[in-house]
Amino acid sequence: MSIRLLNMIRLKYGAGLGLAAAFSISAAPALADEGMWTYDNFPLAQVNEAYGLKLDQKWLDRVQGASVRLTTGCSASLVSDKGLVFTNHHCVVECAQDLSSDKTDYVQDGFLTASREEEKKCPGMQAEILTSITDVTREVQAAGLGKTGQDFVRARDAVMASLEKSGCGDDPNLRCQVVTLYRGGQYKLYRYRKYSDVRLVFAPEFATAFFGGDPDNFNFPRYNLDIGFVRLYENGKPAATPQHLTWTSRAPQDGEATFVSGNPGSTNRLMTVSQLETLRDLTIPVGQLQRSEIRGRLIRFSEESPEHKRIATDPLFGIENSYKVFFGQQFALNDKAFMDAKRAQEAELKAKITADPKLAAEIGDPWGDIAKAQEAYANNYVRYRQIEGGATYSKLYDYARTLVRAAEERSKPSAERLPEFADARLALMEKTLLDPKPVDAPLEETYLSFWLSKTREYLTTDDPAVKTLLGKESPEGLAQRAVAGSKLADPAVRKALWDGGAKAIAASDDPLIQLALRNDPNARAVRKTWETEVQAPTDAAAERVARAKFAAYGEEVYPDATFTLRLSYGKVGGWTYRGQTIPATTNIAGLYERATGAEPYQLAPRWVAAKDRLNGSTVFDFVTTNDIIGGNSGSPVVNAKGEILGAAFDGNIHSLGGAFGYDGSINRTVVVATSAATEALAKVYGRTELVKELTGK
Amino acid sequence: MSIRLLNMIRLKYGAGLGLAAAFSISAAPALADEGMWTYDNFPLAQVNEAYGLKLDQKWLDRVQGASVRLTTGCSASLVSDKGLVFTNHHCVVECAQDLSSDKTDYVQDGFLTASREEEKKCPGMQAEILTSITDVTREVQAAGLGKTGQDFVRARDAVMASLEKSGCGDDPNLRCQVVTLYRGGQYKLYRYRKYSDVRLVFAPEFATAFFGGDPDNFNFPRYNLDIGFVRLYENGKPAATPQHLTWTSRAPQDGEATFVSGNPGSTNRLMTVSQLETLRDLTIPVGQLQRSEIRGRLIRFSEESPEHKRIATDPLFGIENSYKVFFGQQFALNDKAFMDAKRAQEAELKAKITADPKLAAEIGDPWGDIAKAQEAYANNYVRYRQIEGGATYSKLYDYARTLVRAAEERSKPSAERLPEFADARLALMEKTLLDPKPVDAPLEETYLSFWLSKTREYLTTDDPAVKTLLGKESPEGLAQRAVAGSKLADPAVRKALWDGGAKAIAASDDPLIQLALRNDPNARAVRKTWETEVQAPTDAAAERVARAKFAAYGEEVYPDATFTLRLSYGKVGGWTYRGQTIPATTNIAGLYERATGAEPYQLAPRWVAAKDRLNGSTVFDFVTTNDIIGGNSGSPVVNAKGEILGAAFDGNIHSLGGAFGYDGSINRTVVVATSAATEALAKVYGRTELVKELTGK
Repeated sequence: MSIRLLNMIRLKYGAGLGLAAAFSISAAPALADEGMWTYDNFPLAQVNEAYGLKLDQKWLDRVQGASVRLTTGCSASLVSDKGLVFTNHHCVVECAQDLSSDKTDYVQDGFLTASREEEKKCPGMQAEILTSITDVTREVQAAGLGKTGQDFVRARDAVMASLEKSGCGDDPNLRCQVVTLYRGGQYKLYRYRKYSDVRLVFAPEFATAFFGGDPDNFNFPRYNLDIGFVRLYENGKPAATPQHLTWTSRAPQDGEATFVSGNPGSTNRLMTVSQLETLRDLTIPVGQLQRSEIRGRLIRFSEESPEHKRIATDPLFGIENSYKVFFGQQFALNDKAFMDAKRAQEAELKAKITADPKLAAEIGDPWGDIAKAQEAYANNYVRYRQIEGGATYSKLYDYARTLVRAAEERSKPSAERLPEFADARLALMEKTLLDPKPVDAPLEETYLSFWLSKTREYLTTDDPAVKTLLGKESPEGLAQRAVAGSKLADPAVRKALWDGGAKAIAASDDPLIQLALRNDPNARAVRKTWETEVQAPTDAAAERVARAKFAAYGEEVYPDATFTLRLSYGKVGGWTYRGQTIPATTNIAGLYERATGAEPYQLAPRWVAAKDRLNGSTVFDFVTTNDIIGGNSGSPVVNAKGEILGAAFDGNIHSLGGAFGYDGSINRTVVVATSAATEALAKVYGRTELVKELTGK
Repeated sequence: MSIRLLNMIRLKYGAGLGLAAAFSISAAPALADEGMWTYDNFPLAQVNEAYGLKLDQKWLDRVQGASVRLTTGCSASLVSDKGLVFTNHHCVVECAQDLSSDKTDYVQDGFLTASREEEKKCPGMQAEILTSITDVTREVQAAGLGKTGQDFVRARDAVMASLEKSGCGDDPNLRCQVVTLYRGGQYKLYRYRKYSDVRLVFAPEFATAFFGGDPDNFNFPRYNLDIGFVRLYENGKPAATPQHLTWTSRAPQDGEATFVSGNPGSTNRLMTVSQLETLRDLTIPVGQLQRSEIRGRLIRFSEESPEHKRIATDPLFGIENSYKVFFGQQFALNDKAFMDAKRAQEAELKAKITADPKLAAEIGDPWGDIAKAQEAYANNYVRYRQIEGGATYSKLYDYARTLVRAAEERSKPSAERLPEFADARLALMEKTLLDPKPVDAPLEETYLSFWLSKTREYLTTDDPAVKTLLGKESPEGLAQRAVAGSKLADPAVRKALWDGGAKAIAASDDPLIQLALRNDPNARAVRKTWETEVQAPTDAAAERVARAKFAAYGEEVYPDATFTLRLSYGKVGGWTYRGQTIPATTNIAGLYERATGAEPYQLAPRWVAAKDRLNGSTVFDFVTTNDIIGGNSGSPVVNAKGEILGAAFDGNIHSLGGAFGYDGSINRTVVVATSAATEALAKVYGRTELVKELTGK
């Protein structure tokens, strides 16, 4: 689940679409408060000077050690010495949904524990804490030397997997990952302490966490208690975590320096113009049109019955969230002034390189190479998306494909496999595959039928790959038959197929296994074309673009986001746009004023009952100037003393083009305050033990 | 219903998206077979020479007199002397749906009459035959002289309405319309003989007419019996129509000259580059995202029950059809080479004007003026679309808004009203409003709730116009209450409100009337802004662009399509693309080969039964080089002898960018052959009387 980075821009002020185009475009040194910095390249001196602080390496180490990555796509932080982790509700809602049934709805009603015995394991969730970073640029780049096409891609994949393997050995408590930074300018080995047993401790009601729902999702002022707590377990007991942040219930102060430590998922600020044009003209529009249709199907689906509403709540939230993120990206890229600024910046970089003949000879024309690869991209994208991408959202298809491919790949030496099946990567794959999770057949049927019908729509009925998928069946008929007949919802069945390998797969009459099996040759074929014609030339050229940027602007720059740990700095503060000033904070009284009684502005019953007990002036949500993006959800917002002021959960409407640039005058991070969390835990939910663990009182 | 102009371009050949960019861009003299020509400016000599023909004015008059416009958005032709009209199934499917109920499904089963007594009136349908064209350019342009903003727009609206009134008087059998040609280069008064009583004679099963469904909708070879017959009535009897086309059952010949006489709805070939950019970056994306979501909602809706499927069939067809049209437009405009060609062409025109100082002074910089208006367009478009545009697809909202506005407008003198309420326009409005039509409450609720939720999504919860619409209700709650409580489905209730005027509206407690009433001030306000800041400057500048084009290229050019009668010329012929040659015709045997038994490739039972009786080599569908677009659906495809060879019903995948240009080497019109129609009527449907009326045998 990615942070809800929001996307309507000027629309809410009735001013149409299109970005303000005031972005810094960050190849050159970053502007104030800009950047999602790696911990090994944080501009400490610059920040201390700008904010009058004396932060040191020890402070950095302490915050790093308390920062948690959740493999489900979020960030979080340790807030007690007993493994207690603070994050967003929308980072644990999938867990709450997985733990629910048609009898118990933890999403609607909240998940409240009074003691540790009631905490329940979140299926598929793993928590990871970064412990070290090692430069492996030379090793990775060497592996690709003299190679092209798929050979180039696979040789580097193999060396990365092997570095991961040697970096962590067989220690089941460690995870190693080679991270591509600056689009290939650097490669770093990130080493994590991992926790595979993560249990849900507390989640408020969906109506409380997501008050204002999708309509307010890109809005501020906000009144969302978007908090959740999980706990790390080791050997069935709460993990000892002496290194944690200090919980504070005091309100954030206007102008107070804030640091967001988390895992921004993905930015494209270092992409070349031709890549951005492809995103704008092809990738995003196709994705959005499909997302919009499945959104419509799920909205109607969830109106059909309370049970359909229950099972569709979390998926619909996820889809609407992504929809808004890409809506913002689309209209940012559609803004001519913004793209002109990107063009000017690329021209400036090229001019700097050209001015140095030796450098020019070394760099060549990677921009031209990437532009050329865009043609192959356009020619193959839709097929790659539909045939190799598979049935988005479907758990069953995902299980089936993993099992089918694993059976073939695991029989090969690690270095010769598809990279996601390398030895170093199997542990998390196995956990994801085998953890028990509810599978909702009516949703699965919807996803499968959607995928099959869109694949036929985009590739046409007469396409051989479509014929292979459908035979004489309709998308709807095949989806119905496959879901009804599949046994893959049962973890034991998946385990048997995982353990049984190629022989078990060949013998399986499971219709989803058969579907994934007959699609696999076509999927591998288009993946090969993609890696050869698109990925290899793009990766090779992107390294030279990065080299050009380092040469022109030095290494005091931050890389694009990669869902790895970053630190951003900024301060608490509202903003002014078109003469309207938005204050930095909201309070609890404001929630009651905004409530209408109709969804999504309906208060949960506990909040109606607690109204008189609550201090209305308690700060609820607030905004800061920190530069973040989806994946940062749940990130601790820390002050200079290392106290946690809140968890980032959103961005304001102006932060939308955040994938492509940052404008500190109006881009804002939206945070749920620890002050509101404490007040609510104590007075709305009566979680005395939890409050005591957090505050010591 | 507009023609299904199809939109995936190279995708079907696995070559990604993006247009071939081989378009002629038609400011300069048209290429061979290009153009949707007005009957008073048809290049007769040029066509006769190119095709070795001797067509004359008499021939033109004869085809014009047999060409029919259906106010429901289609084209058609007279094919007997007793008022029999031939068109597409998809032009009468709405009528078949309106005549159906939960007991009788004429869409699924077809509508077959054995005698005239069984013919049933199509609600809201009016047929019109063009009888004369008069130039009124001077009058219209004079009305706007010295005026700006909304005054300019309204002064011209008023003179157009008054010309219509004086052109047709009070004759209930006539309709007059002032048509804006060349985006304001010319204004012409079109005078029609109208028929308000149009009855359904024949419609095949949906599965037969739309075999291959949405997946094949941009495909050829095709096997669609997309035919329908209606009959014009006068005083309760079939109208006498001596001027009609000659039905032929012989197959079209490769290379045979063909003429399509019909009403292409809308093209944007004469738009300036800045206007095309707005379409590309704002108008089409927003429209497509909404269309895609409502498509998703309706797909799920129609899966819920056979009755939901029945009522959603026609609306879903319409939405999917529009979706594809704009999908094609979007990716045509996203094609850089195509836009570059447009830019080059605009630069050439500007250079020609600049070269003549006197002309340059007279023309000024209309391109700059239009570019400037794009800013106002972007700032107001979404509000204009949502608030003035209203609840797309909802019949009830449409009724309510018409009634609310009519009550206010009809109390003013005709010249001071909103133009659509001018005297000359009331007759058709009244027919549309008062003709009885089924209103399907579950669909209405879906449409209303969709509109309200998208309006809130785009304008935000805090927008005053959104607050006025919703109050404290949710979109879903309001939609449910309004549809359940409204009586507007009853034509007698509508009649009483129409006749009762302002007083009746003020007294009405109908929730839809109240909704439209409270939205009206906001809708009028944004419309005023739109007319003042967008429409007026654009219209004024577009006239000067047209003048520049006439000056540079002469008047031997065709105007953009305006849903008025046009004639296009071309010939029967397949095409070759990327080495693959597609023959010009398909035959009945091919239908049986393509059938799978699964929707939408399932044969109707009558066709299964008739297989052995049919001549498999009968030509079914065929393609021609004629230049057409949506609105041309149902147009007669006529040969040089005035015989009708078929009805145009679609375009091939390459004709997609047709809104913006034409490429005769690959753009094709898709036609259902009269040969197939005769064979099917005789041997599948046993319509002896109808065949006799058509063929005399």
